[in-house]
Amino acid sequence: MKAEIISIGSEITSGQNLDTNAQWLSRRLAELGIPVGFHTTVADDLSDNLAIFRLASQRANLVISTGGLGPTQDDLTRDVLAEVAGVPLVYDPASFEHIQQMFAKRGRVMPERNRVQAYHPQGSEMVFNAVGTAPGIWMKIGDCYLAALPGVPSEMYLMFQNEIVPRLKQVGLGGGGVFVQRKINTFGWGESAVEEKFLDLPRRGHVPEVGITASDATISLRILARAENYEAVEKLIAPVELTIRQRLGSLVYGFEEEELQHAVVKLLNEKRQTLCTAESVTGGLIAHRITQVAGASEWFYGGVVTYTDAIKHQELGVPLNLLEQYGAVSQPVAEAMAQGALRKFRTDLAVATTGFAGPSGGTEENPVGTVYTAIATRETVASLRYSWFGNRQEIQSRAAKLALNLVRLKLLELPTPAGTNS
Amino acid sequence: MKAEIISIGSEITSGQNLDTNAQWLSRRLAELGIPVGFHTTVADDLSDNLAIFRLASQRANLVISTGGLGPTQDDLTRDVLAEVAGVPLVYDPASFEHIQQMFAKRGRVMPERNRVQAYHPQGSEMVFNAVGTAPGIWMKIGDCYLAALPGVPSEMYLMFQNEIVPRLKQVGLGGGGVFVQRKINTFGWGESAVEEKFLDLPRRGHVPEVGITASDATISLRILARAENYEAVEKLIAPVELTIRQRLGSLVYGFEEEELQHAVVKLLNEKRQTLCTAESVTGGLIAHRITQVAGASEWFYGGVVTYTDAIKHQELGVPLNLLEQYGAVSQPVAEAMAQGALRKFRTDLAVATTGFAGPSGGTEENPVGTVYTAIATRETVASLRYSWFGNRQEIQSRAAKLALNLVRLKLLELPTPAGTNS
Repeated sequence: MKAEIISIGSEITSGQNLDTNAQWLSRRLAELGIPVGFHTTVADDLSDNLAIFRLASQRANLVISTGGLGPTQDDLTRDVLAEVAGVPLVYDPASFEHIQQMFAKRGRVMPERNRVQAYHPQGSEMVFNAVGTAPGIWMKIGDCYLAALPGVPSEMYLMFQNEIVPRLKQVGLGGGGVFVQRKINTFGWGESAVEEKFLDLPRRGHVPEVGITASDATISLRILARAENYEAVEKLIAPVELTIRQRLGSLVYGFEEEELQHAVVKLLNEKRQTLCTAESVTGGLIAHRITQVAGASEWFYGGVVTYTDAIKHQELGVPLNLLEQYGAVSQPVAEAMAQGALRKFRTDLAVATTGFAGPSGGTEENPVGTVYTAIATRETVASLRYSWFGNRQEIQSRAAKLALNLVRLKLLELPTPAGTNS
Repeated sequence: MKAEIISIGSEITSGQNLDTNAQWLSRRLAELGIPVGFHTTVADDLSDNLAIFRLASQRANLVISTGGLGPTQDDLTRDVLAEVAGVPLVYDPASFEHIQQMFAKRGRVMPERNRVQAYHPQGSEMVFNAVGTAPGIWMKIGDCYLAALPGVPSEMYLMFQNEIVPRLKQVGLGGGGVFVQRKINTFGWGESAVEEKFLDLPRRGHVPEVGITASDATISLRILARAENYEAVEKLIAPVELTIRQRLGSLVYGFEEEELQHAVVKLLNEKRQTLCTAESVTGGLIAHRITQVAGASEWFYGGVVTYTDAIKHQELGVPLNLLEQYGAVSQPVAEAMAQGALRKFRTDLAVATTGFAGPSGGTEENPVGTVYTAIATRETVASLRYSWFGNRQEIQSRAAKLALNLVRLKLLELPTPAGTNS
């Protein structure tokens, strides 16, 4: 049993776009117990595509391709699959109707070119796409099952989970054994500080295996294990997970793909607390991250982005003498911003940031990369100074994480940490 | 002439790690005028590696592999290359000494296992690794040149630039001629609408070649050409670029990696105009994108995120009767928000958004995916209704782009478009 993933598109082979679909699919297949032997990326070239699909259908039992299903002349997957299978393309009126409806619902006329998306190789099944116009294709060539899905990640994810997984189980693929990966996300310490806590834990090659990865100041621990069934896997993972959680305590903010904003919105909801933001250096990024979470509107009232001294004074009531004496990038100003936002939005909590994201600016005392973040409630105000190396985007992103973590710790009634993350 | 990139490692085929080496190498090869036909990723499996390297050395003129050069039993690339070439592995004392020195410098004893890194296929050249213990391998099998490099990005980057590029030029690869890719970024129309304008332009396989790609409602046209020198390439590209720019007019907002926020900040600076934001559905994303651009602070005073009706009224003076009569997601409210922000921040321009990003919410008239965006100056206010398919993140991102594009068009004194982008 071996699967192959094919990513189609000259924008990938040319290096213009980074392919993340192959990784996502590999993880899902691993969870289903299907090992992936190859990822192949091929340009939008007919003969190369024919060669790759012919080869893959011979050396793999399952092929999942992404891309090449759009309406343009570059989109070759329909034709390629038909030619490899040696069948003609046939027209599917139901798919055509769905495509037309997708346009009609948004009050738009379907371009004639989109009609090609309703064609599929004779004998194949159309795979329903609830959120886009490109249907997928499911078919068998020789001993190999093939699923062709669109390259748009959000469409592909949904179609794989809702349409392909059931078909895989139906044909007896992905039924044997269970592979589980648990990801524990932490914020507050650097990678090596976290790693030093776990020198005794099993690493690569052991069962369960523990790995540590760092992504933009978020440090994640992954526990990987594989066994006959979920119960057996859980028995392997549970004690390791417990050890990790005990050693890291409140550094742990979430699991799997959870970000700090998910932890914050969950806690706001649990504690029935409301929040607002006052942002300078993060320029709206904290508010943006919070409002990425569906349902945030119940607890997040809003925020201000105050990018000038005058606006900090006018909108947040930051005293002009504080701005003059300490400068906009200072602890007193961060705290005054948080308190000003709290008065303005009448929320339970307010979080504020001010700092130098670079590339220019900064002072000797507060070089580029320095950020002050403050959190205010009706009774208290606390703040934290932090400094990183990094480019503008990295400083902004880490400052937003620092602020979100401050909100999280406040909601958990834990002290504001000194912090060692870098 | 066609190159193939092979990434080796079960941590990639399993989905545990994301491969970014293939993208990096593709870009470097494109700059050298070497087109990449395939990326292949293969697990740490001997027979799969043998098959992949045999195939690649037949279908490509140049193969660059990353990974499989470490000291562990999983590291197979040395053995694979020797077997594909039909030669034995030989020991290189100079490489061994370098590996020992790398350990000594760090005050460590070399594990015996690292000795295997000093072996290479007979007739091949060792490629010097200044920063790690794994030397690379440079060899020719049949008509194909092969470079095997370590998978650690920082080592691989350095070795490619310092060791492989000179060898490529020496053998006449990547030295002949110049390859240029021009990317023209547009916003406002959908992919098929843009493509219908260019059915007559040369597509894949022609010189210059024109490709169209869509990324989150930004449609980009790429012109690719190759010639003896830059002057000759420019002669090929210029007329096609002119045609594209003439046909698309103000849809074109930038080139290469420019985003709408770069175009907006550039225009604010040119026209010496100031801007503020009033965001509901985009929740701070517009402000965040603007403040991503270094130097934005001179023209961007700030913004508000108003996520409740009460805050829209309190902060932006949106009349309560408008909110009651039309709802927060409506054209009158979007326009009142923009006008309120303009009064508050005293800027030349204000842009506002309100809409339903989903997953829940929406009405029959304004389903999830519907966004109103408005732009106000001291004399005028204009607005646009738009509706997309997509998840919460996509709707927010597209709404931010729509708003930024509205600012751009206003600064260019162009009318607010009806728009057809999807």
